[in-house]
Amino acid sequence: MNRTQLIDQIRSKRSFLCIGLDSDRTKIPEHLLMEADPVLAFNQAIIDATRDLCVSYKLNTAFYEAEGASGWVTMQKTLEYIGSDHLVIADAKRGDIGNTSDQYARAFFEKMSFHAITIAPYMGSDSVKPFLKWQDKWAIVLGLTSNEGAADFELQPSGDERLYERVLRTSSTWGTPENMMFVVGATRADSFVDVRKIVPDHFLLVPGVGAQGGSLSDVYRYGKNSDIGLLVNVSRAVIYASAGADFVEQARGVAMTYQQEMNALMGSF
Amino acid sequence: MNRTQLIDQIRSKRSFLCIGLDSDRTKIPEHLLMEADPVLAFNQAIIDATRDLCVSYKLNTAFYEAEGASGWVTMQKTLEYIGSDHLVIADAKRGDIGNTSDQYARAFFEKMSFHAITIAPYMGSDSVKPFLKWQDKWAIVLGLTSNEGAADFELQPSGDERLYERVLRTSSTWGTPENMMFVVGATRADSFVDVRKIVPDHFLLVPGVGAQGGSLSDVYRYGKNSDIGLLVNVSRAVIYASAGADFVEQARGVAMTYQQEMNALMGSF
Repeated sequence: MNRTQLIDQIRSKRSFLCIGLDSDRTKIPEHLLMEADPVLAFNQAIIDATRDLCVSYKLNTAFYEAEGASGWVTMQKTLEYIGSDHLVIADAKRGDIGNTSDQYARAFFEKMSFHAITIAPYMGSDSVKPFLKWQDKWAIVLGLTSNEGAADFELQPSGDERLYERVLRTSSTWGTPENMMFVVGATRADSFVDVRKIVPDHFLLVPGVGAQGGSLSDVYRYGKNSDIGLLVNVSRAVIYASAGADFVEQARGVAMTYQQEMNALMGSF
Repeated sequence: MNRTQLIDQIRSKRSFLCIGLDSDRTKIPEHLLMEADPVLAFNQAIIDATRDLCVSYKLNTAFYEAEGASGWVTMQKTLEYIGSDHLVIADAKRGDIGNTSDQYARAFFEKMSFHAITIAPYMGSDSVKPFLKWQDKWAIVLGLTSNEGAADFELQPSGDERLYERVLRTSSTWGTPENMMFVVGATRADSFVDVRKIVPDHFLLVPGVGAQGGSLSDVYRYGKNSDIGLLVNVSRAVIYASAGADFVEQARGVAMTYQQEMNALMGSF
């Protein structure tokens, strides 16, 4: 999926919502455990309930890897069920030396049909560039994350800036706003002002709204650009809205609340 | 495997060699492609040929993920074949917010029986600590890697030190030399002097000898401690020593050259 197609989706759905399918077998409604693949059944129900309200789904690979090889089958089948109208992100936080990152790109872009993958930038250019060689695919590089540990390194000084600013500034030269995005957490909404000075045009993938407490309106206010330029991810607040028989309706309800707030924020876009 | 057991292995085998099973289906000897699982057959042959010469095997997950779900089965079966006398490392470079790193720990320490996993430290404490809660398991945190891209961030100033030094200094407080190691690349052997000032007691996993050109004797000279404290990894130089019918003998030959050099370096240890 390329940038124009993504913006078209945002415009037509009046939404820049990404739903995180961090589907944990121990947290899904109990009545699904009798299914052959409970997590797949759960994902399919959530997707059916939210397809028209979001422009993207994000699968955090950790939750699938915790089930071993069968988790990878679940991930693949979930991808097939989503189809091609949503930007599908592997939240995998990969990154390794060049010949190895090439293998990760093959794993997620070729063997599986993800459109995008999150990348940990610690190892530098040759760990990121192999993901940028693929047509209509995206590398989403970690900038400033939403967790407490961001204070340990990301927010530390790096020369006359902070490490995450150096990461944004340096790594944005490796690709373009057509094949790179950055992760910037909603829990530090004031940082979006600094982020937008460095990467005004890129899309930002924004975790931290929902269970982690970030504010959607603050993210929009400080983070949007002329193409919206935001994918706001909500995972647990949507998919675990209820653990009961009504989980589908409750998940749709929460997703719709976010979509309606986005619609209002987007104004005449 | 705990630290005492690892040191015992090093002492009895007179080796601190780790062999990297970065097994790429497109690079293994052609006659193996008729096997039901060619990569597993390749790994088993390499393991049989090198078992007595090394104390550790490292599987880079990228090469297995590139084969999808079946690659995870290959990884699992390779682990079973190795058994429990070698420290088995998942070179996975994972790391995510706390509840997600918990899932990765489950994936590699419980669902699969790896002893250790490599971790990218960019996201800070809560992305690393979940791996430290497991008995006789290891988190191997990226310090200074062997690739060109290390210059982009790892070697950049961070306050009055360099980023990788901050990472070593800060993250070493989260665990102990009994449950943490650090990755330090052999291609920058002079850095071991600085590294050992910060983490004198930890084991270091050292890539970059072999195909990447680092010197084993320099690594030993600057990096060893009183327990040896080094696991020197060689991947391609051993496993792809030959692409022909003699690949087993050639791989053993290269591994033995390294083991013999290690034996000589270790002196009276």
